[in-house]
Parts: sequence; structure tokens; C-alpha cells
Amino acid sequence: MKDPRTERVILTLIIINAITLGLETSPSAMAALGPVLIAVDRIVLAIFVLELAARLMVHRLSFFRDPWSVFDLAVVGIALVPATGALSVLRALRVLRVLRLITAVPSLQRVVGGLVSALPGMGSITLLLALILYVFAVMATKLFGQTNPEQFGSLGATAYTLFQVMTFDDWSGGIVKPLAEQHPYAIAFFLVFILLSTFMALNLFIGVIVNAIDAETAANAPKLTHPAHSDERLIAEIRALRAEIAELKGQMSKAA
Amino acid sequence: MKDPRTERVILTLIIINAITLGLETSPSAMAALGPVLIAVDRIVLAIFVLELAARLMVHRLSFFRDPWSVFDLAVVGIALVPATGALSVLRALRVLRVLRLITAVPSLQRVVGGLVSALPGMGSITLLLALILYVFAVMATKLFGQTNPEQFGSLGATAYTLFQVMTFDDWSGGIVKPLAEQHPYAIAFFLVFILLSTFMALNLFIGVIVNAIDAETAANAPKLTHPAHSDERLIAEIRALRAEIAELKGQMSKAA
Amino acid sequence: MKDPRTERVILTLIIINAITLGLETSPSAMAALGPVLIAVDRIVLAIFVLELAARLMVHRLSFFRDPWSVFDLAVVGIALVPATGALSVLRALRVLRVLRLITAVPSLQRVVGGLVSALPGMGSITLLLALILYVFAVMATKLFGQTNPEQFGSLGATAYTLFQVMTFDDWSGGIVKPLAEQHPYAIAFFLVFILLSTFMALNLFIGVIVNAIDAETAANAPKLTHPAHSDERLIAEIRALRAEIAELKGQMSKAA
Amino acid sequence: MKDPRTERVILTLIIINAITLGLETSPSAMAALGPVLIAVDRIVLAIFVLELAARLMVHRLSFFRDPWSVFDLAVVGIALVPATGALSVLRALRVLRVLRLITAVPSLQRVVGGLVSALPGMGSITLLLALILYVFAVMATKLFGQTNPEQFGSLGATAYTLFQVMTFDDWSGGIVKPLAEQHPYAIAFFLVFILLSTFMALNLFIGVIVNAIDAETAANAPKLTHPAHSDERLIAEIRALRAEIAELKGQMSKAA
Repeated sequence: MKDPRTERVILTLIIINAITLGLETSPSAMAALGPVLIAVDRIVLAIFVLELAARLMVHRLSFFRDPWSVFDLAVVGIALVPATGALSVLRALRVLRVLRLITAVPSLQRVVGGLVSALPGMGSITLLLALILYVFAVMATKLFGQTNPEQFGSLGATAYTLFQVMTFDDWSGGIVKPLAEQHPYAIAFFLVFILLSTFMALNLFIGVIVNAIDAETAANAPKLTHPAHSDERLIAEIRALRAEIAELKGQMSKAA
Repeated sequence: MKDPRTERVILTLIIINAITLGLETSPSAMAALGPVLIAVDRIVLAIFVLELAARLMVHRLSFFRDPWSVFDLAVVGIALVPATGALSVLRALRVLRVLRLITAVPSLQRVVGGLVSALPGMGSITLLLALILYVFAVMATKLFGQTNPEQFGSLGATAYTLFQVMTFDDWSGGIVKPLAEQHPYAIAFFLVFILLSTFMALNLFIGVIVNAIDAETAANAPKLTHPAHSDERLIAEIRALRAEIAELKGQMSKAA
Repeated sequence: MKDPRTERVILTLIIINAITLGLETSPSAMAALGPVLIAVDRIVLAIFVLELAARLMVHRLSFFRDPWSVFDLAVVGIALVPATGALSVLRALRVLRVLRLITAVPSLQRVVGGLVSALPGMGSITLLLALILYVFAVMATKLFGQTNPEQFGSLGATAYTLFQVMTFDDWSGGIVKPLAEQHPYAIAFFLVFILLSTFMALNLFIGVIVNAIDAETAANAPKLTHPAHSDERLIAEIRALRAEIAELKGQMSKAA
Repeated sequence: MKDPRTERVILTLIIINAITLGLETSPSAMAALGPVLIAVDRIVLAIFVLELAARLMVHRLSFFRDPWSVFDLAVVGIALVPATGALSVLRALRVLRVLRLITAVPSLQRVVGGLVSALPGMGSITLLLALILYVFAVMATKLFGQTNPEQFGSLGATAYTLFQVMTFDDWSGGIVKPLAEQHPYAIAFFLVFILLSTFMALNLFIGVIVNAIDAETAANAPKLTHPAHSDERLIAEIRALRAEIAELKGQMSKAA
């Protein structure tokens, strides 16, 4: 079912659609080419829907077992949800359709597959980082929520502020120093938080590097097991030698 | 004593307590469910205290030899300290109890164990970094303390300011440029500090990576020592061969 | 044609030119030495043009097959473009000539060669990062373009703003917080963007590290293939042994 | 001459001196203990000078061949320079004496030795980074010097501004955006600069990691060269075997 010609057509359509969706953001391009851009967008969408419908009919339920097919369905399906009223935000998500490029280009698919497969190995340390963030968010909300409601008023606001501290964006002048005027211990609180969260982010990072190097080493391992095979050959040669000497000994006894 | 059913109950209670402690930060949740949340918190705390008391009675002094047990005792014990007056800050620390999740989930315990075991290897370079920070803090306090007392007035204030420079947060516009108007050599001072501290933080980082890769390699090493064993087997085979030939030579002499 | 004396002269001229081009930026140096600096600059340029012309005449078309020669030609050629009117910016590009130092110093040439050869391995993930940036830029332009035209008014402005967010420069106070007042979902939008783009930049980084370690390991690999050769020697020795025993057996038969 | 008791006394004196030098920065400590602190400082300095003089007299010229001794001499000698008038800044450098801790603690000495030995390997890429910084500084001074003299007025000011951009500190709102109002191409200029300098800093970083891993691997290499030795043993065994068979053949010929 993977017809190279169909795939090339789809790839071309994705790129054309990426360009038209980009042009739609420009008022001058819309003034000049508006109807054309919208027409191209609708035609490409129609072809995508037909292509997905065809794949669905051929593969039936096994279509949903391939995560890439489900991904294609999701990014194309967004355009079919009526985007009126409160849902008008959804209209901006139509450009997600361009992400079909990932399923259409094998090298991109491999890279994304690799990134996704790296996620489970990051599970425990991400959970730990989330736990630390949660505990510090609850503490900071209780300690600083009443005096600085804008930054620490609710658990969500505090989590956002702590994330900002983790990225080192204006953490001193914008967050810690104003806070320290009322809560002197805030400096100690944030130093502990920065050291802990940085150390953990660092270890998350190192874990991913070590896993990547490990995977690379495992891929190169067969070359190293080869010598063991040649040992077997050596032992076989030596056993053949012993057999010949045993035979020789037999001849000797007979001769004696 | 590690009863899987008890462990599952404790894990469930930790998660429930994490949620109620989070909800307690929300005024609307407190208005609606306040008494319930506080009751749940007290019940969970009582169960934790009973469970720890039971473990303490069973293991006695060996309880204190297991760092995880001491950790559990510490984070639960904080809630029992009377948090009134100047100590009201301690009330916010009750949420540390949620960190019992680390001892309750084996994969988290492994990750934290790994992080803690990485600390000694970072000792020397951390000491060096602290020494550099101390020397630069004393110098900056003497040089800039009188003109910029807010940022360099005391050793503590200067150390905080230097830490801020290390994180690159507003170091130029907020710290170095205003200072350079009165002390032109401040630019050289801070460039040297930034280069030194960044180079050291980088090496701290690299040290941790190399240790992690080393540990990984050591774990995979047994496969590499195997060939040495097969060498021994080869030599044994060849010695057996020599023994047989020596025997053959003996037969020859007798025959001659 | 690679005459060491010529190369040393060229290297000296590049360094002299680097100094004079630097001095030309100082008004006081220009007041004192202006005519000298300009004269030195012209003479060095003339020598460079002659040297390149000589190399072009000797190597002819093969001159253009060596990327370093083309690089030399480009950075020297910029000075010959008439830099008047709208092109006066080009005059500042004359200092690019100093980059000839890269072709003149072998160790620099090796480093740059290494950096360039690392680029193809970064292709897929760079393309993925560009795709993510494009998709988020189109979405942000549609969502926030009308309320914040300065930061999100056009695709270019949005791409610049998103790049600024990726570098964590004032992303919270300068970009996300003002936006969140009108579009509350902007916080979720940017958290997803930060996590995605950081994770990808991290993987780009790890990919380059793993490739570099791989290349290093491959360069050290010959030492590991050596044992295989000595295995061949061992087997040859054992075969010689078998041949001698076969000969011995022949003698025995004759003797019997 | 390395008497452990002397070394312990020196180490104790360094730590005492570190504390008194720190206390001297506190006005309240100076008010209470001023004369004591200054007296301790002078006594420790006198002991250090005597100890260095003794080492100099014992080792004579070979004293200067040990870089650690020269380091000790330099950080102690600073206190002996008369710090009056324009040189009063030198008084703040007296705390550098605390860095003697590095020569006094073997593990710190090893770490610093390791850091210093990593420097030559970073030479080429650091030179390249400096070259790029120089070329961009000359260009930026010529292009933006007249309109933004504060940030780009001289080569030094521009280099500082570019270094600030490399650390991502307020690069957008503080530097690039104000500049882009007058020079629209400034955005392209700085994007190229950021990508180039980040890519190079990244490669500098990777180079140091790969070198460190290489050094680690080389330290573990003896285990890998061992098999080659045992190969030699194997071949020796087989040769002994051949000699015995040759002897056997000789007996056969005689017997025949």
C-alpha cells in the first residue's frame, strides 16, 4: 500500500500547504492572494481526508495500531472540528497539519521515534523533578501567598514562578529580592530550590547522554564478540592436534 | 516486615495526603472542604506516626542505621513540632511529608540513591568552587562594599550577588555596568570571575558525566574479562598436548 | 606550490592586517596614524589579490574545487566590491579578511573542518527544530498577532520572539506574562513550546556529543582489531605444528 | 623536607587566616575584634614568609621550577607590596593568600592540575572563538558605533556587549531591539553571531568532554592490552611444543 508515487504527492502537498498556511498570516499576502490561499488549503485538506479515509478502509482496525497513522489522523482531524465561538482558537491549530512532514520524511520519523523512545528512561527522574516542584510549590504558596499574591497566590501561579526561577530568567531582581524584603529566609529557600532543581535537571540530562552512548555502544557490540568465536576455532584446532597425536601414539604401540 | 499490602496502603495514603495538602493552599477549596481536608491530614499523620512507631519498635536501634527510615522519621516528625509564634514557618514544611513517596516507590529510591552516591565524587571540585566564590566575595566586599552597599555590603550579600552573576541573570545591566561607572576595573574583575566559575562549573558537570559513563562501562565490563578466561583454557589445552608428546617421547625411548 | 616561506609571509600579513583593521575603529588611532593604517590595508589587500591571482593561474579550475581557496577568494573579494551608497555596509565586512587566519593556521583549519563535518549529522534534528519553530510561529501569529503586533505581528517577528523565548531571555516578564493578561492559554502554549524546543535542543546537543565520541572510538578502533591478527598468527603456528606431526606420522609408517 | 606536622600547621594557619580575612569585611566584627584580627593576620603572614624563605633557602633555584611553589610565593608576596595611594586596590588582593589551600590539600591540587592540563587541548577552538569575537567586534564597532556609542563605541565596549549577548543576558530587549530600530539588518547580524558563537562554545564543551572520556579510557586501557601479552604466552607455548616435536623427529630418524 506504500506507493512511492502517492508518498511523493503527499509530501509535495504538505510542503505547499505549509507555505500557504504561512502566507495566510500575512495581511498583504491575504489581500493579494486570499481566495487562492484558502482554496489551496481546502483542496489539500480534502485530499488528506480522502487519503486517510482510503488508508482507514484498507487497514481497518490495524490503522489505529500504528501510532503514526493516529498522529496523521489527529493533526488532519483538527481542521474538521467546527471552530466557532469559544473554539475559534482551534482555527490556529490547523497548521499542526504541517507536522505530517514528520511521518512523510523517513529521517524525521526516525529522529522523532528516537526522541519518543528516550522518554521512558527519563521517567523516574522526571517524576522526582515534578515531586520536588510540587513540594516547593505548596511550601512557597503557604509562605509567600499572602504577601505576594501575584506570583505565589495559587498553586498554579507558584509553579509558574518556580519554573521561571529554574530557567534563571530574572530570578533575582524580579522574584527573590522583592520577596526577601518581607521574608528574609526566602533567599535560603530559593538557593536550596535552585541547587536541587539544577542538580536534578543536570542528572536528567546526563542520564539521557549515558543512555544514548550505551545504545550506540550496544549497536557496535557484535564486533567485540567476534574474538570469542575465533577462540573456539583455536580450541578446535588444538583438539584436532591432540586427536592426531593420540592416533600417532596408537601407531607407536602397535609398532612396539 | 516489608508487607506488600501495608506498603500499598502507605503509598495510597501519601498520594491522598499530597492532594489534600495541595488543596489546602486554595482558599475556595478550604471554604468548601476545609474541615474534611484538615481531618484527612490529621488521620494520615496519625497513621504515619503509628507505622513509624511500629517500625521503630521492631527494628529498635537498627532503624536509625537505615538512612531511608531516618528520612521518613524526619519528614513526618516536622509536623509534630509545635508551630506557633516564630516557628509558624514550620507549618509550611509539613508538605515535606509527601517526599515519603521517594522511600515508598522503589524506582524513585534508586534514582535518589544514585544522585546521593554521585555527591562524593563532586567533593573536590565543589570545594574548589566554594573556595573561589569565598575569595572573590571577600575581594568584592572590600573593593565595592562602600560604594554599592546593597549588593556588596556584607560577605553574604556579595556571595548572593556573585551567585546571581554565575547564573547570568541580569549580570551586565544590573550589576557590572552600574559598578563600572565608579570602578572601571570591575569589568576585568567580573570577566575573570565569570570565566573561572563557568570553567569550573563546566568541569564539575563533565566530571559527573565521565563518572556516570565509567560506572556504566564498569557494569558492562564482565563481558570483556571473559576472553582472558578462554586464554587460560587455551593454555591448559596446549599444556595437555605437551604432556601427551612428553609421554610419546617416553614410549619412543623405551622402544629404541 | 605550498612554499613555507610564502605561507609565513601571508600569515604575518594577516596578523598585521587584523591589527590595522582593529585600530581603524579607534578615532584617536585614526587621527594619529590614519593614512598609515589605510596604506597598510591597501598594500596587504594588493598582496592578497596578487597571491590569489597566482594560485588561480597555477591551479585554474581545480582552484574552485578546494573549499578553502574559495573561502579565501570570498573573504578577500568582499573588499573589491564598490561600497558606496546603500552598499556602504559592505565596507564593515572587509574585516572578514582576517578569517584567512583559519586557512593559514593548520590547527584552526582542522578545527573548522571538524565543525563543518559535524553539520550533516545534525541535519534531521535541525530540520525538526525548524519545523517546530515554523508551526509554533504560524500558530502564535494567528493567536496573538492582533493584540500584540510588535512581538507577534508577522511570521518574522514571531520567529524572533520565539527564538528569544528559547534563549530564556526575559521570556516571562517581557513576553508571556503581558500576553497572559489577554490570552490565559498563552501560558500553556509557551510551556509546551519551551519543553519541546529545550528537549530538542538537548537532543541535538547529545547527538553531536555521541557522534564525537563515536568518531574518537572509531579512530582508536585499529588497536582493538590487532588481537584478531594475532589470532591468525596463533592458528598459523598450530597449522605448522599439525603439518610437522603429519610428517612425523609419515616417517612412522615408513619405519613400521 | 615535606614534614607532615609542618604541613598540618600550615593548613590550620590557612584556614584561620581565611576566617579572619572574612571577618575583616564585617564592620561589627572589626569594631569588636579589630586589633585581634589584624594581629592574627600579621602573625600568619610572618609565618608564611618565614616558611617560604626556608623553602627557598633549601631548594634554591629548583624552588622556581615547581609551579606550586611559585604560586605560593605569588599569593603570599602580594601582601608585601606597599598598598598605598593608587595601589590601595592591592590590599583587597591579600585574600588570594587563602588560595594556598589548593597547594596544601592534595585532592584540590590534583583537581586544579587536571583543569590546567585540560587547557592546551582547548587551545585551537578558544583561538577560533577569539577570532570570531574579534571579527564581529570590528564589524559591529564600524556598523553601530556612531549610533549607539555606549554599547559599540570602541572595540573594548563592543567586545563586552558581544560577550553579554553570548551569555544571553538581556540580549533582545537591551541590545538587539533598540539597535534594530535604526539598523534593521542588526537582527540578522546578531542571529548569525549567536548561532556561530553558541555552536563554537558547544564544540569547545564537547571537545573537553571527549578528551576527559578519552583520558579515562586510556587510564583503563592496560586491562585491554593484557590479552596481547597472553597471546605472546600462547605463542611461546606453541613454539615450545614445536621444539619438542622436532626433537621427537630427531629421535625417530636415529631410531630408523
